[in-house]
Amino acid sequence: MSLQIDADGRLRHLLTIDGIPKRNLTEILDQADALRSVALRGNKKLPLLRGRTVCNLFFEPSTRTRTTFELAAERLSADVINIDIGSSSTSKGESLLDTLATLEAMHCDLFVVRHPDSGAAHFIAEHAKEGVAVLNAGDGRHAHPTQALLDAYTIRRHKPHFETLTVALVGDLLHSRVARSGLTCLGTLGIGELRAIGPRTLLPPTLDELGVRVFTDFNQGIADCDVVIMLRLQKERMRGALVPSESEYFKRYGLTEERLGRAKPDAIVMHPGPMNRGVEIASEVADGPQSVILEQVSNGLAVRMAVMSQILGAAVKEAT
Amino acid sequence: MSLQIDADGRLRHLLTIDGIPKRNLTEILDQADALRSVALRGNKKLPLLRGRTVCNLFFEPSTRTRTTFELAAERLSADVINIDIGSSSTSKGESLLDTLATLEAMHCDLFVVRHPDSGAAHFIAEHAKEGVAVLNAGDGRHAHPTQALLDAYTIRRHKPHFETLTVALVGDLLHSRVARSGLTCLGTLGIGELRAIGPRTLLPPTLDELGVRVFTDFNQGIADCDVVIMLRLQKERMRGALVPSESEYFKRYGLTEERLGRAKPDAIVMHPGPMNRGVEIASEVADGPQSVILEQVSNGLAVRMAVMSQILGAAVKEAT
Amino acid sequence: MSLQIDADGRLRHLLTIDGIPKRNLTEILDQADALRSVALRGNKKLPLLRGRTVCNLFFEPSTRTRTTFELAAERLSADVINIDIGSSSTSKGESLLDTLATLEAMHCDLFVVRHPDSGAAHFIAEHAKEGVAVLNAGDGRHAHPTQALLDAYTIRRHKPHFETLTVALVGDLLHSRVARSGLTCLGTLGIGELRAIGPRTLLPPTLDELGVRVFTDFNQGIADCDVVIMLRLQKERMRGALVPSESEYFKRYGLTEERLGRAKPDAIVMHPGPMNRGVEIASEVADGPQSVILEQVSNGLAVRMAVMSQILGAAVKEAT
Repeated sequence: MSLQIDADGRLRHLLTIDGIPKRNLTEILDQADALRSVALRGNKKLPLLRGRTVCNLFFEPSTRTRTTFELAAERLSADVINIDIGSSSTSKGESLLDTLATLEAMHCDLFVVRHPDSGAAHFIAEHAKEGVAVLNAGDGRHAHPTQALLDAYTIRRHKPHFETLTVALVGDLLHSRVARSGLTCLGTLGIGELRAIGPRTLLPPTLDELGVRVFTDFNQGIADCDVVIMLRLQKERMRGALVPSESEYFKRYGLTEERLGRAKPDAIVMHPGPMNRGVEIASEVADGPQSVILEQVSNGLAVRMAVMSQILGAAVKEAT
Repeated sequence: MSLQIDADGRLRHLLTIDGIPKRNLTEILDQADALRSVALRGNKKLPLLRGRTVCNLFFEPSTRTRTTFELAAERLSADVINIDIGSSSTSKGESLLDTLATLEAMHCDLFVVRHPDSGAAHFIAEHAKEGVAVLNAGDGRHAHPTQALLDAYTIRRHKPHFETLTVALVGDLLHSRVARSGLTCLGTLGIGELRAIGPRTLLPPTLDELGVRVFTDFNQGIADCDVVIMLRLQKERMRGALVPSESEYFKRYGLTEERLGRAKPDAIVMHPGPMNRGVEIASEVADGPQSVILEQVSNGLAVRMAVMSQILGAAVKEAT
Repeated sequence: MSLQIDADGRLRHLLTIDGIPKRNLTEILDQADALRSVALRGNKKLPLLRGRTVCNLFFEPSTRTRTTFELAAERLSADVINIDIGSSSTSKGESLLDTLATLEAMHCDLFVVRHPDSGAAHFIAEHAKEGVAVLNAGDGRHAHPTQALLDAYTIRRHKPHFETLTVALVGDLLHSRVARSGLTCLGTLGIGELRAIGPRTLLPPTLDELGVRVFTDFNQGIADCDVVIMLRLQKERMRGALVPSESEYFKRYGLTEERLGRAKPDAIVMHPGPMNRGVEIASEVADGPQSVILEQVSNGLAVRMAVMSQILGAAVKEAT
């Protein structure tokens, strides 16, 4: 039995894109479509999760991520509790499982979990009470499934024929949970060709096995791409030995207008944010006509609302 | 005139169990019964306190306690404001009374107060504007009345004939606001026999006067009990001279399955949380069939909703 | 084109009182009248901003100010997000404009901005997306327009004939955004005579140009005033060379009952809070019959609700 999909094929938790059938991924994107239009109204609220309790359980701080989940839950009319577990009961020596059991006993329906360790969301889902759902908001280097889904959704809105597309991920794929989840998601959804571009030191060795074409030369890798997904370069990589310097990195792997000219003329540019302007992306590209970076943020809300609705069992049709 | 009970016999503030008539305590437990079932629905929200403002005024951090009051207020549809007073206006030199008056002027209806000093909740209630209610969420070593009420409620759900029961509190009664409030509450509600079990150094000298039977031998004290309430051993007691060591404490006052065997066969085990597993309680007991520890957490929400409704004047019958 | 007023003469942002026509200021005060009565009901909620998202963007901490805007937004049924930008994404090196664009992409409708630098709210408003409003909750020494409006509103409730009034601001006008906004607001609304009272070192040199009568002698300046607005003396001024000592300051510029006796017999006393009792104001005055200090706090909520409604386009008549 899968932890994420129940016997009836419905999404129960969202921990990782691995193992989720295409049918469920598509269902989420379809529901996001319905929810996206609500966000454009004056009154952005829907009663889908009224009376349900969503608990943001953050073991590492991330205002941006917490805000997007908080807004998604509020717009579905859920009650939201923010718990910063670093400063909380673990300091009293309570175990993680006791903390969880306590929150479950308070009738929390959904845990949105952010954790510095890979596998933490799985661990919590394995021990969750029946009826309590877990949504992984990023765990270590492992997975960030809602980011993958919002990327896929953003691509689909611009270029719906996935099988004809060439999509490149550029930068530090080795340390990126965004890249890991993203490649799996786009692969499952049937993207024609997936490419990875970056310095050898920042590319995981297993990419070939996944059917991803690997490039260390950006100019070659970007040729004829439909979608270019730039990854954030963590500052600590620059300080370490993996990357020579910011300016050197930008020279070789920064996305400039000139480089973007080698992709298809209607190619779109994506970035999970927050951006290091002048490091992995030039400002004129980030703010240029091919950038859909802010659209990703908006789509992220719709996708998170869709996932929350799915795993708390609210029907798609109610939303529309 | 009592600060807590008004001329018509209604609860106005909840500061301590001392001096609250049995009738009012029973009324809270009865309303908790009505509210408990709501928590088991999909939509856990009630409109009882819609448009009312609850202010969590925390002078010491306690995520667990704050969360339970926050959820209780949200499920009653109140607006909730969390104010961590440590990091707030007192640092600008504003007096506590000015802070209170300011929040009252913002039309806060209820202050949930947590404070490291005994008597702080009383002080605030004495100076509160008419129509503003105060709920003590723990002040120093003094009182923790909602914990006492949720314990009584949990016992009543399992063993409603109070006059026939023997209830033991075990551990550090000297420093525990839970114990102090608990003994008074159970005494007022007519529990047949109350026992206190612990090392002499952790038992207050006044227990005999309260009609509590005192035991320093756990095996003797637990014999034929219907309810065993374990108290949390604060880490600082172990570091001080009051307790020899964790393992020594567990040997003499830890609740094991063997010891529990001396109580009545259907005895229930309680703990206010968070637990120190292996110090005051063995894991097999904490997670065993006689433990109602997580039920206490759930009941805590219903009881806090009941108290909030009572002191803000919402009628019981509206809830059902 | 004004940044604050649109082509149809409607308030679009509230950044500073400077440049806002009397008509708009009066409109806000009128709507505050309608909203004030709601706060006195049991259910203080109105559906005016239901489904709108208000983002409290605080670049410096201020629990008191944040709380008042949070409550104002909640009572209008908006969703509220609190973002403490000090501890947030700027630490990841994201620029302010990227943070703003991200929050706009999450469909925030209104930013309530608090910032230590003068002009920050203007900067944000200049770069805000169409349809997104900015409300200045205090920026550096520059402006604090809602404080000015609530002061004007409080005066109007007691003394509606502005043209006949003499109003004095007393204390540190040099460093006070409250004073700057206040003088402009009261001037625009047509107060008969404005006075500034304080030590030379704490009075800005430009007061005469504004038509304000300047006094360094409190006893002279307060004579026959209808309204006395005391300003908070920042502790750091006392430590610096600008003010000799707390007790010396109180002797010369503290408001005592005796001094208040020189004003009109029905004069009212105001203070933006938090007060330094015994420094700029004596307790018997702060708590005395002529003080309307707590009323200012209540009025502040109504005024902030009014401003939020105005800049988010909700009609006055819906409120009543």
